Amino acid sequence: MDDLKVVVIGGGSSYTPELIEGFINRYDELKITELHLVDIESGKDKLKTIYNLSKRMIEKANVGIKLFQTLDRQEALKDADFVLTQIRVGGLDARVLDERIPLSHGIIGQETNGAGGMFKALRTIPVVLDIVEDIKKYAKKDAWLINFTNPAGMVTEAVNRYGDFDRAVGLCNVPVNMKNQFAEIFKVEPDTIELDIVGVNHHFFVTDIFLEGKSSIDELLDMYVSGELQNTPTMKNIESLQWSKSLIKSLEAIPNPYLNYYFMTKEQLQSERDQYEENNVRAEEVKKIEKELFEEYADPDLDVKPKALEERGGAYYSDAACSLVDSIVNNRRDIQYVNTLNKGTVTDFPYESVIEGAAIITNDGPKPLNYGKIPYKLNGTLQTIKTFERMVCEAAVTGDKDLAIAALTLNPLVDSDTVANSVFKEMFEAHKDYLPQFDQE
Amino acid sequence: MDDLKVVVIGGGSSYTPELIEGFINRYDELKITELHLVDIESGKDKLKTIYNLSKRMIEKANVGIKLFQTLDRQEALKDADFVLTQIRVGGLDARVLDERIPLSHGIIGQETNGAGGMFKALRTIPVVLDIVEDIKKYAKKDAWLINFTNPAGMVTEAVNRYGDFDRAVGLCNVPVNMKNQFAEIFKVEPDTIELDIVGVNHHFFVTDIFLEGKSSIDELLDMYVSGELQNTPTMKNIESLQWSKSLIKSLEAIPNPYLNYYFMTKEQLQSERDQYEENNVRAEEVKKIEKELFEEYADPDLDVKPKALEERGGAYYSDAACSLVDSIVNNRRDIQYVNTLNKGTVTDFPYESVIEGAAIITNDGPKPLNYGKIPYKLNGTLQTIKTFERMVCEAAVTGDKDLAIAALTLNPLVDSDTVANSVFKEMFEAHKDYLPQFDQE
Amino acid sequence: MDDLKVVVIGGGSSYTPELIEGFINRYDELKITELHLVDIESGKDKLKTIYNLSKRMIEKANVGIKLFQTLDRQEALKDADFVLTQIRVGGLDARVLDERIPLSHGIIGQETNGAGGMFKALRTIPVVLDIVEDIKKYAKKDAWLINFTNPAGMVTEAVNRYGDFDRAVGLCNVPVNMKNQFAEIFKVEPDTIELDIVGVNHHFFVTDIFLEGKSSIDELLDMYVSGELQNTPTMKNIESLQWSKSLIKSLEAIPNPYLNYYFMTKEQLQSERDQYEENNVRAEEVKKIEKELFEEYADPDLDVKPKALEERGGAYYSDAACSLVDSIVNNRRDIQYVNTLNKGTVTDFPYESVIEGAAIITNDGPKPLNYGKIPYKLNGTLQTIKTFERMVCEAAVTGDKDLAIAALTLNPLVDSDTVANSVFKEMFEAHKDYLPQFDQE
Amino acid sequence: MDDLKVVVIGGGSSYTPELIEGFINRYDELKITELHLVDIESGKDKLKTIYNLSKRMIEKANVGIKLFQTLDRQEALKDADFVLTQIRVGGLDARVLDERIPLSHGIIGQETNGAGGMFKALRTIPVVLDIVEDIKKYAKKDAWLINFTNPAGMVTEAVNRYGDFDRAVGLCNVPVNMKNQFAEIFKVEPDTIELDIVGVNHHFFVTDIFLEGKSSIDELLDMYVSGELQNTPTMKNIESLQWSKSLIKSLEAIPNPYLNYYFMTKEQLQSERDQYEENNVRAEEVKKIEKELFEEYADPDLDVKPKALEERGGAYYSDAACSLVDSIVNNRRDIQYVNTLNKGTVTDFPYESVIEGAAIITNDGPKPLNYGKIPYKLNGTLQTIKTFERMVCEAAVTGDKDLAIAALTLNPLVDSDTVANSVFKEMFEAHKDYLPQFDQE
Ligand SMILES: [Mn+2]
Ligand SMILES: [Mn+2]
Ligand SMILES: [Mn+2]
Ligand SMILES: [Mn+2]
Repeated sequence: MDDLKVVVIGGGSSYTPELIEGFINRYDELKITELHLVDIESGKDKLKTIYNLSKRMIEKANVGIKLFQTLDRQEALKDADFVLTQIRVGGLDARVLDERIPLSHGIIGQETNGAGGMFKALRTIPVVLDIVEDIKKYAKKDAWLINFTNPAGMVTEAVNRYGDFDRAVGLCNVPVNMKNQFAEIFKVEPDTIELDIVGVNHHFFVTDIFLEGKSSIDELLDMYVSGELQNTPTMKNIESLQWSKSLIKSLEAIPNPYLNYYFMTKEQLQSERDQYEENNVRAEEVKKIEKELFEEYADPDLDVKPKALEERGGAYYSDAACSLVDSIVNNRRDIQYVNTLNKGTVTDFPYESVIEGAAIITNDGPKPLNYGKIPYKLNGTLQTIKTFERMVCEAAVTGDKDLAIAALTLNPLVDSDTVANSVFKEMFEAHKDYLPQFDQE
Repeated sequence: MDDLKVVVIGGGSSYTPELIEGFINRYDELKITELHLVDIESGKDKLKTIYNLSKRMIEKANVGIKLFQTLDRQEALKDADFVLTQIRVGGLDARVLDERIPLSHGIIGQETNGAGGMFKALRTIPVVLDIVEDIKKYAKKDAWLINFTNPAGMVTEAVNRYGDFDRAVGLCNVPVNMKNQFAEIFKVEPDTIELDIVGVNHHFFVTDIFLEGKSSIDELLDMYVSGELQNTPTMKNIESLQWSKSLIKSLEAIPNPYLNYYFMTKEQLQSERDQYEENNVRAEEVKKIEKELFEEYADPDLDVKPKALEERGGAYYSDAACSLVDSIVNNRRDIQYVNTLNKGTVTDFPYESVIEGAAIITNDGPKPLNYGKIPYKLNGTLQTIKTFERMVCEAAVTGDKDLAIAALTLNPLVDSDTVANSVFKEMFEAHKDYLPQFDQE
Repeated sequence: MDDLKVVVIGGGSSYTPELIEGFINRYDELKITELHLVDIESGKDKLKTIYNLSKRMIEKANVGIKLFQTLDRQEALKDADFVLTQIRVGGLDARVLDERIPLSHGIIGQETNGAGGMFKALRTIPVVLDIVEDIKKYAKKDAWLINFTNPAGMVTEAVNRYGDFDRAVGLCNVPVNMKNQFAEIFKVEPDTIELDIVGVNHHFFVTDIFLEGKSSIDELLDMYVSGELQNTPTMKNIESLQWSKSLIKSLEAIPNPYLNYYFMTKEQLQSERDQYEENNVRAEEVKKIEKELFEEYADPDLDVKPKALEERGGAYYSDAACSLVDSIVNNRRDIQYVNTLNKGTVTDFPYESVIEGAAIITNDGPKPLNYGKIPYKLNGTLQTIKTFERMVCEAAVTGDKDLAIAALTLNPLVDSDTVANSVFKEMFEAHKDYLPQFDQE
Repeated sequence: MDDLKVVVIGGGSSYTPELIEGFINRYDELKITELHLVDIESGKDKLKTIYNLSKRMIEKANVGIKLFQTLDRQEALKDADFVLTQIRVGGLDARVLDERIPLSHGIIGQETNGAGGMFKALRTIPVVLDIVEDIKKYAKKDAWLINFTNPAGMVTEAVNRYGDFDRAVGLCNVPVNMKNQFAEIFKVEPDTIELDIVGVNHHFFVTDIFLEGKSSIDELLDMYVSGELQNTPTMKNIESLQWSKSLIKSLEAIPNPYLNYYFMTKEQLQSERDQYEENNVRAEEVKKIEKELFEEYADPDLDVKPKALEERGGAYYSDAACSLVDSIVNNRRDIQYVNTLNKGTVTDFPYESVIEGAAIITNDGPKPLNYGKIPYKLNGTLQTIKTFERMVCEAAVTGDKDLAIAALTLNPLVDSDTVANSVFKEMFEAHKDYLPQFDQE
């Protein structure tokens, strides 16, 4: 590749500095020629702050990346090689509603799960599908879309099923985080570890772990069962709860931390309701963190990624994105954990659905390692979430309210069809400006 | 077939008179030579009452069925053609615990679902597997086991997976009841209707209904969605709740009434807790009904099945059993709804699992009509229950407490891994006499 | 159904009298109001002969069927309930070429197999798809197409895949013939027998046989293996060759007689080449039979189906069609052997492909009995033919010569890619007038 | 790994010097401590020659590999890490019969295909299963079996299905050879190329080729179709014939050279019969080559692998084995083409069967890259061979002659059930000393 044009949609995100740092660090082997930060009118000020910080970082690093900021997405996409999407439709205010409204109905409110996750998907999917249309029109024929907009699994599923576009990869930092935490547990370097994971974004299990290629899942399970590991490795944004020994021993797999919401619903709900009472649900907390971050970013003397960013739940998200771009450009054939089409990788999932799993990354994109059958004990919960994802994607594209409500009724975090109906009604009213695909009444 | 020997294990059940009536009514075409009622020591008195009533019924009907009562199961099984199992391990007292203990932990207590259903399975499966061993030893080589002991789905799954016996059919009256209720709705005769159903025992959906062969599901769905049908057709033992229009419209399927527990959990739980407070959970109610029934049965002037029996939840259960025996003996090739091996009938279910579905009944047993793929919206909930069933069956056979606990954690009616652990502990303690396969500590 | 309009495309076929007889015999329960015999200009004379004979038959039987003859297909199709297709594109002269040209290249020439079968498909499929378009435009919305035009499997596959029409059933007399022959062997009535068959039209195996529902395949296999059965049951148009004991014993299945062509290729080829030398390949023989039949039909005193017709290979074809119409109209739910969509009936075949198998026949059409996995020993040959069928169907619709040649190369009856190319070239030249979908050079 | 013990069963093979060279070349990263050459009594002299040459090679290279020769297999296997099998049961004389007897019956005689391939499998599988028993008893717990004994696909299938051993990898040089030849065509280095291949050993297709990760199959197909490539890349031991443009264009895949036998049967047969007449079938030719090779090997001045060895059909076989050992030991995670368990890699193949395909090689063995569905046009021929392989493996283990005969009847290279019977009879008689698992009459 002679020149390499990368476009970041949602360039004004607080995560962008990590991305910039990642591209700077990899510059020797991944020479990005042009980097375009794109945002929308209402994000203009944040975009400017990010652009300026990024410019200072690039200048300090003395790498040849030409940096641009713009509100004109289509112009930016012209001849792009990679498009990175990290948008938040409705901003953090919408997320506050996604978390608070369900809680007010007695059910869990969460960014990517349950009612909150569904509404985030309903708002986001049409916007990403619009971006895909622009990519098809303006970007290079073989351009890649790297999506780390949440809910990353559903967004990637929707792009593959409804976007007539097969060069989208969804990205999440949870597998990388788990790998890092397991590396700490085993006191080894993360890059000597590989995982077998099965499931979808934010809803998967680690079914094997390989240290220098040697299967070590039994050793890891023993640490849980024996009580040696007091806490589940987790994410910045998720409470650390402890699975019962019986659960881990029987599943023979480590649930990813988001599974707290499903297997510890009662405790999780209690803890969220406390936060709700204190007006301090996660979104409200994040708003404060973001405010502080942007104040720090605005400091004209800052020319590196500030430490504080690592405290955000999304740490390693952007780094994962840089790694992915690098491995595609350089045909590295290394193993990464991505959201990509199943095509029989996991026998029991739909062939045309998106999974999160291990893949080698090549210039032709991710090539999943075969997984095979889902261990039978894990099948129920995984299929339930896949069903939910597909219903939500279909509702997001068709604007079918009944389908969205039915998806909620079937969701394990919603405890009744009547609750599904009432929570939908209130959330729809609250978010309707971002839901033009639905009948507005 | 020259002579036909039928053995009823659990012959002292209050349902037996319906069975007797069924065999009497079919006697012209289904000439049962010997009918053996078998029960255990603690059921001796009830067995005697039932035997005497049955004898009066047979005499009144003037049919040539020779009736026997015994506590010696192996003797009774000698050269049997059909073995019908309708046992209740631990009796109604155990069922009271199955319903009350979970409620005391804030979760649903139900005979065949959730924690209660699991413990019923753990108590019952080893006993049925023992019966299967006796059948293999004493009965005719081509004898059939017709099981209507609950949880009928799990029991049939366990017999097929662990019993090394492939001539077991599981039976439930829900499909027949739904068929009868649809017949009333459409004002047609039940035998002009066939259903497409997909799922497992007590957890299935009606995805099509055929009136004289004509697909009429759209008409039926419309009645629900338009509000014309004010109540879901239901069972005697299940509250009638109303699904939302959105749910029915989107699923394009009619849930069976037990799905209340899953899609109306909140309301169902509230209603059960009220019964709990009033010491009137379903099992407690049934105990009263049973008491009255047996008083009636003891009346030496009674020589027909008393009307009151129809008020029990299990009405049509025994009639379904008689129909099944008749169709096997006479190779009728009519359609019945049974629990039988999947073998690809429903593509997405495990090949070696048991499903509840439409089958033609032949002398070689049930031959399922092909179903194909599970409609994607129904897949999640159905797989979740199949996973649960398989875990419970495995735990019942191996005596693995951890597995039983994990099954509970994954069950949609249990709201936390910690609850799963504590409810298991209390229930195990309460039922341990009937759980010899587990470590007793 | 108040009135019942049946249209026979290819009404001038010599098989029509059997059809008429079939409808007459069933008239009490299947009251056909109008019966339209449709043919093309070049078949006018034969149509007239058939029409006259049919009229005499109907009058003699004194049934209320109104009979019509016409060359105007679209007019005839108006408001039709059933459309029966029994056409032969290119007539028997084309069949002579289908048999003789391959033989001249040293490979088997056969009506429905190999190069001959492929060219018959290439000529026929577009015509049947045209008929389907007319049915969709003119016939009743719920009209059925009953196709017994050969190659019936490929024609039905093509209609399902490319015709946007899901109410087509393909019919063949081989399963019925085998059932009748087994009935003779076992000295029972045919209607007490059912078969398990797996495969596609003219390429299937009988894997079980049920006498009054009792599995009797072992008994049947023993007769073959012991030598008690000296000859394979076969068809009028197929030589009776004897499978080796090793083959039958190992396959645990009875091949249908057409499998001679695949498993006795050498002998079959030798015998065909002898016929070739004597200018007496099957098509040439059939031409003589047809000539005699039509002479007999023309006899104004003939008012019943003549005995001679039963000597044609297609005996029972039309009777099978009448049975099928009857069971659909009357929702009989009896078992028949038809070509219909697989949809998971046979797990290993493509979901959207057509199989030949046992189905109960209802007013909503055939509902296949689940079959499950293909016994592994039978899988290879069955998949090979399904691949061939799909390639030929695609070539027939797209007019892709390369694909047709590749299909031949992969066909087991063609012994080289070079032969495939040369035989294709000569046959295309010979049949090109009937192959307008292909580039004519 | 501290020390590394490698055992070569069939150490006296003429291919061993390539193996020695491979281990010498890799010594820096793959420090083999002990290398044991094992052979049987009748191969003692050849073993000695090979041992002496190998010793000279190792000494010249000055690497620390301790070399041993022995006839005591069990002793040699003690604590082995890797066991390489390269045996030829019956020697080249048996191969002469495998090729000549089928030809005398008018069908193709070939080392790994048809009747010849089957008898090689029947002789070899029990011996390899014996070796597997010894490995389980004597070698390290995590020892690997690298099998390049032909027919490598069937042998690996048999070990996996019947050997209760899941650490066997089958190896063939055809994929590597094709990769090398494609590299020449594209004028790039072989290690910049990866292939998508689908099928089984000696019966697979290349369905994509990636140059530096970029899919280039269309470019490659065009070269075939345009005639730019005059000859199919092929193996030393296989004639180069030219596929028709229609075939390649339609299959959208490059057949491996062995597919000549199936798609150019007529020409291949003619050419083999000429060799037969001249007493110069491939096995006879190989005998001469071997004689010359061993004369050369005996030269006490020879201390490198002689050039002449590259002329043998098996060139790169041993090098592939060295690469595989290296990647397992060093957890390289590079892509190699191996025979390994399918487990859903190729959706349409049996889950428990062995496939030949691309896998990354880790310390835990090969992890196949997911392939997905077989392109439908390739499915028939691939399934046919897989069916054949499974029947032959079962016959080899059970000693079921009928099954072996039926396998032949179903094999595309055998043109009749009668030929299958007669060729089996003659070959069995010829090979019976090596077929102790069968009834000897
Ligand atoms: Mn994430
Ligand atoms: Mn029931
Ligand atoms: Mn036919
Ligand atoms: Mn090879």
